[in-house]
Amino acid sequence: MAPPKNERNQVFLGSFIHSKKLDELEYLHNTAVCVDKSGKIVAVEAEHDVEKNLDTLYSKLGWDASNVDVHSTKEGQFFFPGFIDTHIHAPQYPNAGIFGKSTLLDWLNTYTFPMEASLKDLTKARRVYGRCVRKTLSHGTTTAAYYATIDVPATNLLADLCLALGQRAFVGRVCMDNPDMAPADYVDESADASLALTRESIAHIRAIDPDYALVSPVLTPRFAPSCTRDSLRQLGALAAETGLPVQTHLSENVREIELVASLFPEADGYAAVYDGFGLLTPRTILAHAVHLSEAEAGLLARRGSKVSHCPCSNSAITSGEARVRWLLDRGVGVGLGTDVSGGYSPSVLEAARLALLVSRHLAMPHQQPGVSDADRERAKLSVEEVLYLATRGGAEVVGLERRVGAFEVGMEFDAQLIGLGLVEEASAGIKENEGQEDGGEDDGNVDVFGWETWEEKVAKWVFNGDDRNTKRVWVKGRLVHTRV
Amino acid sequence: MAPPKNERNQVFLGSFIHSKKLDELEYLHNTAVCVDKSGKIVAVEAEHDVEKNLDTLYSKLGWDASNVDVHSTKEGQFFFPGFIDTHIHAPQYPNAGIFGKSTLLDWLNTYTFPMEASLKDLTKARRVYGRCVRKTLSHGTTTAAYYATIDVPATNLLADLCLALGQRAFVGRVCMDNPDMAPADYVDESADASLALTRESIAHIRAIDPDYALVSPVLTPRFAPSCTRDSLRQLGALAAETGLPVQTHLSENVREIELVASLFPEADGYAAVYDGFGLLTPRTILAHAVHLSEAEAGLLARRGSKVSHCPCSNSAITSGEARVRWLLDRGVGVGLGTDVSGGYSPSVLEAARLALLVSRHLAMPHQQPGVSDADRERAKLSVEEVLYLATRGGAEVVGLERRVGAFEVGMEFDAQLIGLGLVEEASAGIKENEGQEDGGEDDGNVDVFGWETWEEKVAKWVFNGDDRNTKRVWVKGRLVHTRV
Repeated sequence: MAPPKNERNQVFLGSFIHSKKLDELEYLHNTAVCVDKSGKIVAVEAEHDVEKNLDTLYSKLGWDASNVDVHSTKEGQFFFPGFIDTHIHAPQYPNAGIFGKSTLLDWLNTYTFPMEASLKDLTKARRVYGRCVRKTLSHGTTTAAYYATIDVPATNLLADLCLALGQRAFVGRVCMDNPDMAPADYVDESADASLALTRESIAHIRAIDPDYALVSPVLTPRFAPSCTRDSLRQLGALAAETGLPVQTHLSENVREIELVASLFPEADGYAAVYDGFGLLTPRTILAHAVHLSEAEAGLLARRGSKVSHCPCSNSAITSGEARVRWLLDRGVGVGLGTDVSGGYSPSVLEAARLALLVSRHLAMPHQQPGVSDADRERAKLSVEEVLYLATRGGAEVVGLERRVGAFEVGMEFDAQLIGLGLVEEASAGIKENEGQEDGGEDDGNVDVFGWETWEEKVAKWVFNGDDRNTKRVWVKGRLVHTRV
Repeated sequence: MAPPKNERNQVFLGSFIHSKKLDELEYLHNTAVCVDKSGKIVAVEAEHDVEKNLDTLYSKLGWDASNVDVHSTKEGQFFFPGFIDTHIHAPQYPNAGIFGKSTLLDWLNTYTFPMEASLKDLTKARRVYGRCVRKTLSHGTTTAAYYATIDVPATNLLADLCLALGQRAFVGRVCMDNPDMAPADYVDESADASLALTRESIAHIRAIDPDYALVSPVLTPRFAPSCTRDSLRQLGALAAETGLPVQTHLSENVREIELVASLFPEADGYAAVYDGFGLLTPRTILAHAVHLSEAEAGLLARRGSKVSHCPCSNSAITSGEARVRWLLDRGVGVGLGTDVSGGYSPSVLEAARLALLVSRHLAMPHQQPGVSDADRERAKLSVEEVLYLATRGGAEVVGLERRVGAFEVGMEFDAQLIGLGLVEEASAGIKENEGQEDGGEDDGNVDVFGWETWEEKVAKWVFNGDDRNTKRVWVKGRLVHTRV
């Protein structure tokens, strides 16, 4: 079951928008992006005169025109890099939107552990995971860093589904062997058992995708309180032995931080717990990092570990407001996570929107006494910046910054085709049936009147866009989602 | 052009969900709601055995079965009261999502005034207003309190469109006669001119809908800084003379509050400015009220004036976090406003979602030094509470609490039919085309697996729902929107 390949070379023609740097989008119009059979971008020809130059382009690439698929776009559509969800719990997908007024620790016991435990039933797991992967693809998520459950067959099934459906993924069997922090029916038996099961799942993924071309394992200690010292130590050693990425949670909630301090009194702060076991590597993804100290941010920067910012989750379960600018200023890489189902939405676009709004909450007058007006103003993230976090920032967080996140020669083609709705001139803006008029496409809630700049169109997409605007999605050059 | 009426009586059968009180939804299943030709609810028969009892019901009502339309629902669908948008600027609709990093005062000058001024062009106004009314209807907004522009013909056109498209609306010509706070081409010439134009627009609405059965004028001083004392005084007198509702802005932004203090040094606070001119009536809608003092909240409560909470706007343009619980505790009525385009979305459901999230931001640990842990916890709004604000709360704000907001005998039938997506058992949750599989309906992003309680289904709708879930919309018993 190797990852499927394309039979033909491809040329994508139209407008391409991607991040040049943190605060700058690049707009490439009348452009041709050439993608070879392996899914790699081999040419980006800006301001290309389509009619005249395709043959020249093919001969430069040594391509035979009869073996090239050409994808043109409609007016107003544009290609954007696929989104990268750096933190999502696939088994919690059915709970999206269900959390009441809970915060982290009671939310885990009330909603999360029972749902995760129930996915031992592989029929249920197939239904939930299949839906989750399809749904995130439909929102333009081309790469996802998944937490599965403690169960190996269900974890392996998630990896199989990602491979079959064509989503780039990191799939982690969840390690949790501290019986004081888990229900009796949902806990690893021991540190040794936890490690053995983790190795089993790694072996499965290596068997189905030997080069981790699409799907990779990721070591996944749930969070410090869930794991014994022995388990954390063994996982740190496994990270060193295999070079595999690591994902876990850090400093999400004030009560959780107090709990960590009581469980690991020897460590100088939450981040230091992981560091003590060799779990802060340049390939470590730390979800949340809301309440970090200066010393902890410095430690992350030195280790090269990255942060997955999850604004929907942090707002919904009242965890706090992560200081993204503050982290970036300290040299810590940041991407976005949906954190389903602490986060209510599987959409990275929603996470980008909320990242911008949360940064405004940090900029409000009463916030953080002691922070200067200028620093509060700087906390605000722009549309350009949250789109960077959703693409290149996320790529850096999952260690794929040279392979995905932009339209550059040498990168792989992970992309989404975006189409926005145009409000007609003629009929007074009045359509009989919103949505699917003329039996045609439903372009959702982004209304373009025609006078907007490209920057304004992108802002409208970020604020009112949804999966209806994501018309097609490609991973490694392979079409993995089409909206009728 | 009187408001259209239905020719026939109607029975709606199925599940009905509405607010019983602030923190409680009532679930009425197997229920029949009977609506007469005038759009009034004349019977609510809960746990109705449809087959057996319809004839009994008709004879009780004195209805002839041949003159009744029966509306049944599909499994899983439910009726919900229409949403009430207590604050929306129709002319700003094309700017939704466009605000950069601006805050109130620069946002007005950069984005808002130029767009509003341009709608003097009635062709453009028709396109924008038509789209705005259609779009808000498609999101389930059955009542909207609109700000138009200073231009009378364009304002009258908005009223005409609401009447023709069947949306219950308050339509206000914007009064702004302070030349220091407006562009030279977008300002009333004088206080007298401002009042005369306002009377013109009132006369037009009285001509098209004499009883204000569907569309009503509303006195609309933009906000204190936009108006001279003379203008505010005349508008206060007009409110007393006509008994018409009033809408304006209050205490949105810290700089704005400083500006008001400098312009009206004689008043003891922002709310007192309006009170001094007789503009705080029981029919006054005050948008935002983010930074009120105890004295101001007390003044609003004594006057019976109400607050339109606009969480999307307050977050997006960094105004602050309005303390809804604090206002309710002080006896001030609160509803929700989208505040397009300070708010980025025309959806009241999005405003409800954001109201819940903003209340979480108020509950975060570092917030508001001096507020106790218990009070912070109390600040959180539940799913039930934000849905109350979106319906009954809004009805109270616009003075329609006895006419709309719930399914009760004597109220008018303003309702939406909600349908959620059911994830199939069979195909492993994998559908080839998300969205419009089988050429059928697109149920959007709410995924129901079948094991959820009704409370959980409603929570899923609040967090992942959008206009795709609003299948049909009725105002006064008249079908005004159908999704394919």
